[in-house]
Amino acid sequence: MDYNNNLKKGDTICAIATSGGSTAISVIRVSGDLAIDISNNIFRPISGPSLTNSAPRKMRFGKIVKGEELIDEVLIVFFSSPNSYTGENLVEIYCHGSPYIRKEIMMLLFSYGARQADPGEFSLRAFLNGKMDLSQAEAVADLISSETSAAHKVAINQMKGGFSKELSQMRSSLLNLVSLMELELDFSEEDVEFADRNHLNNLLKDVKNHLEKLINSFSLGNVIKNGVPVAIVGATNTGKSTLLNSLLGEDRAIVSDIHGTTRDFIEDLVNIGGTSFRFIDTAGIRNTEEKIEILGIERTFEKIKRAALVVLLLDSERPDGFHDSLLKIKESLDSLSQPLIIAINKTDSLQNEEASKHIINNVIEISKKIGLLPVSVLPLSAKNKTGIDKLKEVISSAGEIKNMPSDSLLVTNIRHHQALILALDALVRVEEGILMNISTDLLTQDIRESLFHLGEIVGEINSEEILGNIFSKFCIGK
Amino acid sequence: MDYNNNLKKGDTICAIATSGGSTAISVIRVSGDLAIDISNNIFRPISGPSLTNSAPRKMRFGKIVKGEELIDEVLIVFFSSPNSYTGENLVEIYCHGSPYIRKEIMMLLFSYGARQADPGEFSLRAFLNGKMDLSQAEAVADLISSETSAAHKVAINQMKGGFSKELSQMRSSLLNLVSLMELELDFSEEDVEFADRNHLNNLLKDVKNHLEKLINSFSLGNVIKNGVPVAIVGATNTGKSTLLNSLLGEDRAIVSDIHGTTRDFIEDLVNIGGTSFRFIDTAGIRNTEEKIEILGIERTFEKIKRAALVVLLLDSERPDGFHDSLLKIKESLDSLSQPLIIAINKTDSLQNEEASKHIINNVIEISKKIGLLPVSVLPLSAKNKTGIDKLKEVISSAGEIKNMPSDSLLVTNIRHHQALILALDALVRVEEGILMNISTDLLTQDIRESLFHLGEIVGEINSEEILGNIFSKFCIGK
Repeated sequence: MDYNNNLKKGDTICAIATSGGSTAISVIRVSGDLAIDISNNIFRPISGPSLTNSAPRKMRFGKIVKGEELIDEVLIVFFSSPNSYTGENLVEIYCHGSPYIRKEIMMLLFSYGARQADPGEFSLRAFLNGKMDLSQAEAVADLISSETSAAHKVAINQMKGGFSKELSQMRSSLLNLVSLMELELDFSEEDVEFADRNHLNNLLKDVKNHLEKLINSFSLGNVIKNGVPVAIVGATNTGKSTLLNSLLGEDRAIVSDIHGTTRDFIEDLVNIGGTSFRFIDTAGIRNTEEKIEILGIERTFEKIKRAALVVLLLDSERPDGFHDSLLKIKESLDSLSQPLIIAINKTDSLQNEEASKHIINNVIEISKKIGLLPVSVLPLSAKNKTGIDKLKEVISSAGEIKNMPSDSLLVTNIRHHQALILALDALVRVEEGILMNISTDLLTQDIRESLFHLGEIVGEINSEEILGNIFSKFCIGK
Repeated sequence: MDYNNNLKKGDTICAIATSGGSTAISVIRVSGDLAIDISNNIFRPISGPSLTNSAPRKMRFGKIVKGEELIDEVLIVFFSSPNSYTGENLVEIYCHGSPYIRKEIMMLLFSYGARQADPGEFSLRAFLNGKMDLSQAEAVADLISSETSAAHKVAINQMKGGFSKELSQMRSSLLNLVSLMELELDFSEEDVEFADRNHLNNLLKDVKNHLEKLINSFSLGNVIKNGVPVAIVGATNTGKSTLLNSLLGEDRAIVSDIHGTTRDFIEDLVNIGGTSFRFIDTAGIRNTEEKIEILGIERTFEKIKRAALVVLLLDSERPDGFHDSLLKIKESLDSLSQPLIIAINKTDSLQNEEASKHIINNVIEISKKIGLLPVSVLPLSAKNKTGIDKLKEVISSAGEIKNMPSDSLLVTNIRHHQALILALDALVRVEEGILMNISTDLLTQDIRESLFHLGEIVGEINSEEILGNIFSKFCIGK
């Protein structure tokens, strides 16, 4: 798709900005030069002036008509360019949430010259019209899909321009650097050194540190966006899938306390205390029973490698297997370092609390003997859902996102992460070049490359391919 | 639920008025005395006065905050009582369509004293506050779920009060009647006859005719609301399920031309030329092959009994079975009278057009011989989707909703239908009573009963049970 061209043609676009089905209200957005005129053609106010003679931002009540036929009674409002989300003339129609009505209104808008918007095209236009930079536009998509408090915080800070400001400071430092160096080049005949090498080096180090900090924040940012990965491991029939269902099921019940949010739930992601936890390889765990009777060491190792947190599930009815399971976990964790939680399942089938305590002590002792240091050993019943809350507490505190920067300045976007790495690489070359006394004009080339990559993030340098990649992932109507 | 009490308590209610998932925009509605104050607590305008000092119907841009924390940037608007949908103070918040944000804003509203609205509670309040009568409120729910042009037309006319007006005219006729008769009773000592018996009879007949017309419109109204039932019958392996998939599949493709409408499609309902056709027993047809090789006469009869239109599918590769199938259809249709369409499948596997014509003529001849009168005999290939459009045309014209009243005044609601029948019954008793010279005070009792049932429809007479039944079927936020 030719993004810049599409806009230049002055197309007016429209889209349903809410989801399908029969709902109380649907929102249809129209944006472009002709948005108000096109909407005016199909809107008849109950009283007062026509839409084109109305004040912007004034909510009007009236009819959407197809010739003489009444399609719906709606609320309608418009925003005049440039004071709108897209920076263009923008109309929002609030109609009854009927599939038929939505379709008819869209068809009417088409018939007067609007066209169906591509995914993210409203935000694309906002970007192209300078209403927001590219990283802010990307944050809009992140904001919409955020499921937890942490993900929301990072996205909304980015949308508000926190990240852009940070980048802008680094870029002006680099621009300052490069202009000093280029001044030197201009006067090279005279052998003048405008740029104090020490000053240059300090400037460079500052920006480099900043870049490194941002690049390192990606692992945390990614966890916030996609959930803290937790591996549930254990021998066959210890109840891993039942445990997972209990974890998921309880969360579902909480979510559905508020009507209308049930469908928002993402499978296998459990929100515990405001942090998303993502349970690894759960599809396999849930759908099939593992074929091998004892813990497959390689498979477990793979799971653990991808996890930030490990839950080992033991079966209280099979204490003979404890030593074996614990030993294998020990081997896996030796080369890694994730916190380990040991949960002992089916403790409700034990005769009394004494028996339960005995088993827990047994597990603690074996662990000690082989040098395993679990953060917690706790009894539960996955089937009867006892001990699940306690497990959640332990998972939450062991997997808690620590050192969350107060300004929530985290890189969560892989595109940004890659651009930052390339920007850093170029600066490393500059640093090396200074040490090796490489000529200034070569150094400035590398600084310019670093600037290029930083510019890519906010979209000062952009290609259609980049724009296509970014906005095609948006939802319709945004 | 105590509907009248809930309102009297002055509760402020809130709900998400759009559906779940991650979407461009979500709408949250707040209604009640404190709607504006509660919203003011969580809204910080970017510029200009606070929400409470703002003008009604003015779209404001600002932040939703939880203490110091930014939850979202939103548009917000309020409507002052009584000039709103509910007749109360009403606020609408247009936020980003994020599950997290929706939940947070709802929680914030709860924390300031609003409570989650019940399904249909906004419309219930509109009804209780006299913004619409009960049949109009019911039409809102019908409008939202309307899938076809015809269903939409009936619902929107009812919502606009067309049906209410009709009822109101009948009720004032009856009230006129009853007051004349009661005047007579007051002066009964003086043996005065204020009400001319002929005039009374004419008035009564008028209302009765009107009621009968409305009651009879229910069968059409019901078809418009739920689709024209079509039975596809035929021996095993003639391709009934493939045919159905072709009919459904093509419709799906059309619907999905517009992004966002795909999910609106209701399975097994096919929209042909603005009318819904509902294919009977299609679940069975699609999922399982019928076990018996020949047409099970009882089963077919059952299907046909529930259909307004019958499509018999024959297999061109098995002409031996034609006579048998046609004979059985004839037997079924003898006691019924639905139009029959005969479709001959797999005609594309025939060598040439001559062979196809030969088969069609064969079918026509057998039909003639046994006295069967199909409205059309046509060849098709369910698999290769040839002839499907022609079949649709034939179905559409045979099943066309004829005599659709130009004012779209149709009864589509079973509650209305039942009340109308009771109202009519009472008037029939009045008519009989006049003939039998029953005393005027007994006659007026029956007229008052008729008035009662008509009053129930618009909600002048209502019980909590009726309200509960009606509004609990609404969607949340409406």
